[in-house]
Amino acid sequence: MAHTISRRQLIAASGAGAGLLAAGAVGALAVEARSETAGTASPGPHDAVPFYGEHQAGIVTPAQDRLHFVAFDVITDDRAKLVEMLRDWTLAAARMTAGLDAGALGAVGGPAQAPPQDTGEALGLPPSQLTLTFGVGGSLFRDAKGRDRFGIAARRPAALEDLPHFPGDALRPEISGGDLCVQACAQDPQVAVHAVRNLARIGMGVVSVRYSQLGFGRTSSTSTAQATPRNLMGFKDGTANLKAEETDQVRDHLWAAAADGSDWMAGGTYLVTRKIRMTIETWDRTSLAEQEAIFGRDKGEGAPLSGGKEFDEPDFAKVGDDGEPLIADVAHVRLAHPTSNGGARLLRRGYNFVDGSDGLGRLDAGLFFMSYQRDPHKQFVPVQRNLARHDILNEYIRHVSSGLFAIPPGVRDAADYWGAGLFG
Amino acid sequence: MAHTISRRQLIAASGAGAGLLAAGAVGALAVEARSETAGTASPGPHDAVPFYGEHQAGIVTPAQDRLHFVAFDVITDDRAKLVEMLRDWTLAAARMTAGLDAGALGAVGGPAQAPPQDTGEALGLPPSQLTLTFGVGGSLFRDAKGRDRFGIAARRPAALEDLPHFPGDALRPEISGGDLCVQACAQDPQVAVHAVRNLARIGMGVVSVRYSQLGFGRTSSTSTAQATPRNLMGFKDGTANLKAEETDQVRDHLWAAAADGSDWMAGGTYLVTRKIRMTIETWDRTSLAEQEAIFGRDKGEGAPLSGGKEFDEPDFAKVGDDGEPLIADVAHVRLAHPTSNGGARLLRRGYNFVDGSDGLGRLDAGLFFMSYQRDPHKQFVPVQRNLARHDILNEYIRHVSSGLFAIPPGVRDAADYWGAGLFG
Repeated sequence: MAHTISRRQLIAASGAGAGLLAAGAVGALAVEARSETAGTASPGPHDAVPFYGEHQAGIVTPAQDRLHFVAFDVITDDRAKLVEMLRDWTLAAARMTAGLDAGALGAVGGPAQAPPQDTGEALGLPPSQLTLTFGVGGSLFRDAKGRDRFGIAARRPAALEDLPHFPGDALRPEISGGDLCVQACAQDPQVAVHAVRNLARIGMGVVSVRYSQLGFGRTSSTSTAQATPRNLMGFKDGTANLKAEETDQVRDHLWAAAADGSDWMAGGTYLVTRKIRMTIETWDRTSLAEQEAIFGRDKGEGAPLSGGKEFDEPDFAKVGDDGEPLIADVAHVRLAHPTSNGGARLLRRGYNFVDGSDGLGRLDAGLFFMSYQRDPHKQFVPVQRNLARHDILNEYIRHVSSGLFAIPPGVRDAADYWGAGLFG
Repeated sequence: MAHTISRRQLIAASGAGAGLLAAGAVGALAVEARSETAGTASPGPHDAVPFYGEHQAGIVTPAQDRLHFVAFDVITDDRAKLVEMLRDWTLAAARMTAGLDAGALGAVGGPAQAPPQDTGEALGLPPSQLTLTFGVGGSLFRDAKGRDRFGIAARRPAALEDLPHFPGDALRPEISGGDLCVQACAQDPQVAVHAVRNLARIGMGVVSVRYSQLGFGRTSSTSTAQATPRNLMGFKDGTANLKAEETDQVRDHLWAAAADGSDWMAGGTYLVTRKIRMTIETWDRTSLAEQEAIFGRDKGEGAPLSGGKEFDEPDFAKVGDDGEPLIADVAHVRLAHPTSNGGARLLRRGYNFVDGSDGLGRLDAGLFFMSYQRDPHKQFVPVQRNLARHDILNEYIRHVSSGLFAIPPGVRDAADYWGAGLFG
C-alpha cells in the first residue's frame, strides 16, 4: 500500500511543509518516500523509483513505457538565478518522483491568492515509476555567440564536444541541441507530462522550452527481465542492448570516471538523442523478404537470419546455398554490431513517436533514439558513421534532430542538487 | 488466460486464414475472439472489447486511457473501390480489436515476396481494450466543389449539417473536417497507433490521412465505475458526463432513431471533435482562487463552490456573505450545465494532448474534446454557443480544429461492414 500511495492522499500529509519548497525544508519528505522503495529491485507499474543515489535514475533502471523529453534554453545570464532554479528543480523532482505534488495547491501565507505550486493534473495518480534525468548541453558552457555566460567554459568535458555531421543528416536546428535537458519517463504519460510542465513552470524567467517530445512503447530493454519491444517498422529493437545486469560492461561502457578528465562527471554519463523520422508508408509497401534482409533478422521472432533464436549471436560468416552471407554486408544488425565498431556498445533507451500527420497524407512517425554511453565520440559516433554510410535502412529513415548532453552523477541527498558538481 | 491471449500466440492459430482477409473468410475468427469477452461487463486492461453489436464500441464502452484519432480524405471517385475498402477495413478492425494482426506477415501464394499484411509493431501485445469507431463527414456526401461523388447526397442526415461559426474560433482547415474518421482507443498507445496505421495502409490509393491526433489521460468517464480524471488545467473534468448506466438518458440523448429522419443512422450517433489548445503557461500564473472561480469547482476535490462533494449537484442560487452567487454567472460549471442549455446533455470522451512545443517556448498542449450526441445542433451547439460567448475560460483556451461525423450503428456480423447502411 505504501508503494502506491497517491498524491491525493499525500496532500494532507505534506501540508504546510509543501509551502516551504523554496527553503529546502521538504527534502525529508522525499527521502522518506524513497526509503519505502529502496529495497525494491523491480518496482511495480505504480510504484516509485528511488531518486537519490550514486547515478541518476532513468538510465539503467528498467525502461518505462512512456517518455516526455524536454530541452530548455537558459534565458538569463545570471548564474545565481540559474543555480537557484536548479535547486528548486531538484527538490520538486525528488517530490514528484516519490509521487508527491511539486508543491502545495495553495501558496504560503495566502493559499488561494497565489498561483498553485503544483498544476494539479497528476493529483490522485500514483508515482508510476516516474524518473527525471537531468543533463547539460555544450551550449551552456559556451553559447552560439561564444560567450561563457556562467563561468564554466573551462569545465566542459571533452566527451561533450559537438557531434560531427553525418551523411544524410537533415537536422532542424529548432528541435536540436539545448542548454539543459530533462528526460521524464513513467508508466503513465500524464505523470511524465505533469513533471515536465511543472519544471517549466518553476523555471519561468530562467529557462524557456526549446522543444519537447512525447514517446511511447520503449524500443529497448535495459534489463534482461524485460521483453524486447518493437519499433514502428515492426521489428524487435535493441535485442543486443547493453543491460543493467552486465555490471562489468556497464562500468566500462556507461559510467564516466574521474580519470576521463572531468571530476564533476564521475558517475555520470553522456546522452545522445536523435529524432529519426520513418517513411512508414514506403516501408509498408516493401516485401517481407526485403524488410528482413535490411534488418538481418526475421520479423516474427527477431532471430538473426543466420539461424537460431532472438538472443543467439548472429553468425556473420555463414553463407547460404548461393554462397552469399545470410546476413548481408549492409544489413542493420551487422553494421550496428560491436564487432563492426571496435567493440563499441551503447545503452539505448529510445521511444516510438507519432506526432500526428505531416500534411502530405502521411503519419509523422518514427523513433526518438536515445543512447547513453561513457564517451559518445568513441561509441555513438563510429556506430552512426557506419550506419549513415552503408545502412540500406537509410532509404526509409531521416535524422531530423540531434542532441548531446552531459548527464551528471546522481543527487546524493536533499542538500545536493542537479549540477552541484558543475556549479558548486 | 483466454482474455489476454497475445497476437504472437495467435499468428500460428490464424495461419492461412489470415492470408484470405480480402475474401472475408476470417470473420469467424473475430467472432470467436469476441465471444470470449461477450459476457464481461468490465474488461481488464489487456482484454478485448466486443466489436460486433447494435452500437459501435468506443462510445458507451468504458473510456480507455489512450487515443489515436484519424481523419481521412477519400482520394478516389470510384464508389466500388470505396465500398471494397470499407469491407476490408471492417474485417481488419474485427481482427485487430480481437487482438489479432490485421493480416498475415507474409502474403498469399508467396509469403516473403509481397509486403506484409500487418505492419508488425503490435505482435505480442494483447488486445488492450482496443476499440475502432468509424464515422462519415459531411464532405463525403457533397465535397467542397459541391459534387456528389458517391451518389449519397440525398442521404445526408439533417444532424450532419455543418456546425456554425462560434465566437473566438481559430480553426485551421487542414486539421478540421474529413470525409471519414476512425477513433482508435486502447489502454496501450502502440496498439491504437498500430490499428490506425494499418487502416491507412489498407486504404492506400483510396484514402489519404488528412490529420491525426494522439491523446492520453481520458478526460471524461463514461461509466459510474470510473474515477473522474483531470484535464491539463488540473481540474476534474466531466463529473456530470452522460454515463452508460443512465440507460433512459442514453436512449434519449445519445442514440439516433429512424424517426430522426435517416433510417441508416438508427442506432448510430454523431461525434463532434474540437481540438482546444490551452495557454497553460498563463493559466499556471493564475491564482488558485481565480482558477476555482472560473471553473466553479474547487481544484483539490472537484466539489462545486456552492458546497458538498464532487458528485453533489451545484446550487447555482446559493450566495455568499457578500450577496454574490458562490458559483459565478460566468463560471464554466454553470454555463455548461444542462439547466443553462435547455436540458442538453453530451457524452464526452475527450483526451489530453501534448504535441511537443510551439517554437515560442511553450508546450503545445490542451484538450482534444470529443462528444457524442443524438443531434449536435440541439446539444453541442447550444452548449458551445453559451461557452463561447460567456466563459471566462476562453482567456486561456483556443479552438483550433473542428470536426462533425455521423457514426453509423454497430456492425452486426462478419457479413456486415462499416457504412453498409449508407452504401448497401
